[in-house]
Amino acid sequence: MTEIPGAVCAPAGFSAGAVHCGISQYAVDPDQAREDLTLIVSDRPATVAAVFTTNQVQAAPVIVSKEHLARSAEHRAVIINSRNANACSGERGLNDARRTCELVAEGLALSAHEQVLVCSTGHIGEFLPMDRITQGVRDLPARLSSNESAGEAAARGIMTSDAFPKAGAVEITFPDGATVRLGAIAKGAGMIEPNMATMLAFLTTDAFAPRPVLEEMLRGAVDHSFNRINVDGDCSTNDCVFLLANGASGVTLDGHATRLEIFGQALQALCLRLARLMVEDGEGATKCVRICVTGARDCADAEKVARTISRSQLVKTSWCGNDPNWGRVMDAIGYSGASLDPARISISYNGTPAVRNGERAADLDFSALKQIVSQSHFDLEIDLGHATGSFWLYASDLSPAYVKFNLRE
Amino acid sequence: MTEIPGAVCAPAGFSAGAVHCGISQYAVDPDQAREDLTLIVSDRPATVAAVFTTNQVQAAPVIVSKEHLARSAEHRAVIINSRNANACSGERGLNDARRTCELVAEGLALSAHEQVLVCSTGHIGEFLPMDRITQGVRDLPARLSSNESAGEAAARGIMTSDAFPKAGAVEITFPDGATVRLGAIAKGAGMIEPNMATMLAFLTTDAFAPRPVLEEMLRGAVDHSFNRINVDGDCSTNDCVFLLANGASGVTLDGHATRLEIFGQALQALCLRLARLMVEDGEGATKCVRICVTGARDCADAEKVARTISRSQLVKTSWCGNDPNWGRVMDAIGYSGASLDPARISISYNGTPAVRNGERAADLDFSALKQIVSQSHFDLEIDLGHATGSFWLYASDLSPAYVKFNLRE
Repeated sequence: MTEIPGAVCAPAGFSAGAVHCGISQYAVDPDQAREDLTLIVSDRPATVAAVFTTNQVQAAPVIVSKEHLARSAEHRAVIINSRNANACSGERGLNDARRTCELVAEGLALSAHEQVLVCSTGHIGEFLPMDRITQGVRDLPARLSSNESAGEAAARGIMTSDAFPKAGAVEITFPDGATVRLGAIAKGAGMIEPNMATMLAFLTTDAFAPRPVLEEMLRGAVDHSFNRINVDGDCSTNDCVFLLANGASGVTLDGHATRLEIFGQALQALCLRLARLMVEDGEGATKCVRICVTGARDCADAEKVARTISRSQLVKTSWCGNDPNWGRVMDAIGYSGASLDPARISISYNGTPAVRNGERAADLDFSALKQIVSQSHFDLEIDLGHATGSFWLYASDLSPAYVKFNLRE
Repeated sequence: MTEIPGAVCAPAGFSAGAVHCGISQYAVDPDQAREDLTLIVSDRPATVAAVFTTNQVQAAPVIVSKEHLARSAEHRAVIINSRNANACSGERGLNDARRTCELVAEGLALSAHEQVLVCSTGHIGEFLPMDRITQGVRDLPARLSSNESAGEAAARGIMTSDAFPKAGAVEITFPDGATVRLGAIAKGAGMIEPNMATMLAFLTTDAFAPRPVLEEMLRGAVDHSFNRINVDGDCSTNDCVFLLANGASGVTLDGHATRLEIFGQALQALCLRLARLMVEDGEGATKCVRICVTGARDCADAEKVARTISRSQLVKTSWCGNDPNWGRVMDAIGYSGASLDPARISISYNGTPAVRNGERAADLDFSALKQIVSQSHFDLEIDLGHATGSFWLYASDLSPAYVKFNLRE
């Protein structure tokens, strides 16, 4: 597996383009001129697997994309706007999302607008400025390109509160010599919580696989990446991950156990890389902490503990202050709802002990712990001392900058 | 029901005292000289009802007070230290809590140390400085008084991160002419989340009632007060609410339905007053918001919605910014797990509509909403439009000051 440039444009047959059409309705916008409308196109029908937000309040584009996935077996394009979530926008929002797909289908001369998928991200509760979207969609076909800079423009175009674009691509050569490519862009910095937070990710590959096979692989990859991050615990109305497979490499994964395994691992690794970038880019975040829970009754209990710690304002704030405050961690473990015996709990940071058997470790070295927690990346290890259930996830800290940032919207 | 001064010393037969014995081990302490050890005494055996934290990691004083409640039917005193939680302190912590009760029993010449209850609040994971506690407990009997200033000193003595003391007392005259008094002190400003957060409350009354009757009344009052507040969503290891009834008024509640009802209402009102003070004094809080959910499938679903909103960092931050951001409220409702139809949801602030049928209200008056959310107290009303389940609670906002405060500990 080799890193390559190009992001979503790296796999054969994919192109992308992005324009600034002026979607933000806020006068004060730090990046007024940044691309806000992005199109990803496959030159031939692609099979698509998708994972959507579990939020019951679902944005119009989520509902429309689900419809289009149900009605069409193959898709040609994804249109994404930033700066406006098109959520809580009722019938008008649904019509706007459908109309956007129709405009794209016209521009690309597609036979059906159901071959277009649509995503939005940004402020909840505003109607899309359809005049600007219309103009933007008309401008997009001329911008389409499969070169490196098109992939970069697409990564920028889907950003909202992100501080930097998130993209990646790999070339995978299977043991039998067959080669495929996998590319991706993603966005997400706030409203980030497991189960598909305010995040979007678009993955493209020139491998071929039927939808059920892609779906199983994507679900597994998402469960071990985007569903294991926490910035602020808020799960959004708009989250989507799409994997588009157009088969342009001539290589199929279907029925090849080794290829499937290797491709699945590459997919998961790429998703995890993007997910970690989201935590590192968490609004106001200064830390990216991997929380590793072991020794739980079962994995579900380990997950409860990890998620409870990742959501604790007091724990997250202590990280921001470079404070190895294990008391707050013990407190969060205690109200996680997991089955536990406090007297068996051990806590360490990067392997350096803080708690043994539920008490301050006898050999606790505060300055060593403080040095670890002062780093931008560290592991927080919790052993419940109970059985073999385990879970891990990545979490950001909570800084004054997070609050200040979210005050202004 | 008349407001009276004196706090826990207002009911007949109760006295209190507080001293500074130097429990904090932190050199930089803004209130170095403040009282940190508090004693509440009944001049005759009192019946005690108690509610404890649901956190599985329970501090030593919680475990010891539970033992003493089980072993003795009547109690004479409660000893409380601030600045140190005596939590995650193992066998040594249990011995320290028991020893503290023994010292109090000696000082008051009680027949058994099980007649003393013990509470701690403060930093988790430090051992109590028993030399200072010992000296403090020796000094306390001479400080005991039943006058007004003793009640005030007790309210100050249990403070940790609180900005102001929390106390209250009422005189209740029943329709039959019998009169009893009820007094209280409480503390809590951080680690505040329903189910008994880092909070302590001590209620005294000169009424008499058997323990099961007191327990039922106290549980009902706590469910409608301390269990309906949220500052930061962290539920602590040390929370306790004690109600001591010494019967010194000669008035019994037992078997008197009217007295029980009136006393229960007064108890709940006093608990709610103290609970609201905790939210108003929430670390860094600038707002106290009552979240009222109606129209849910059942009350449990309404509670899910209210609690999810009260914990949302994005919603809490928007309040701090005087922003009637109903999109973030819709988002939080959507991931609350409650049964709901987004198209039936309505949201208003102090009765002024923001959302109708899941969409921005047609007559939405942004400046009117902004004015409401700019106030220090307002109601956020959510109608799920489903059935008749309802729930309310009080929540603080999330400010940069909260994060800055919790960075430094």
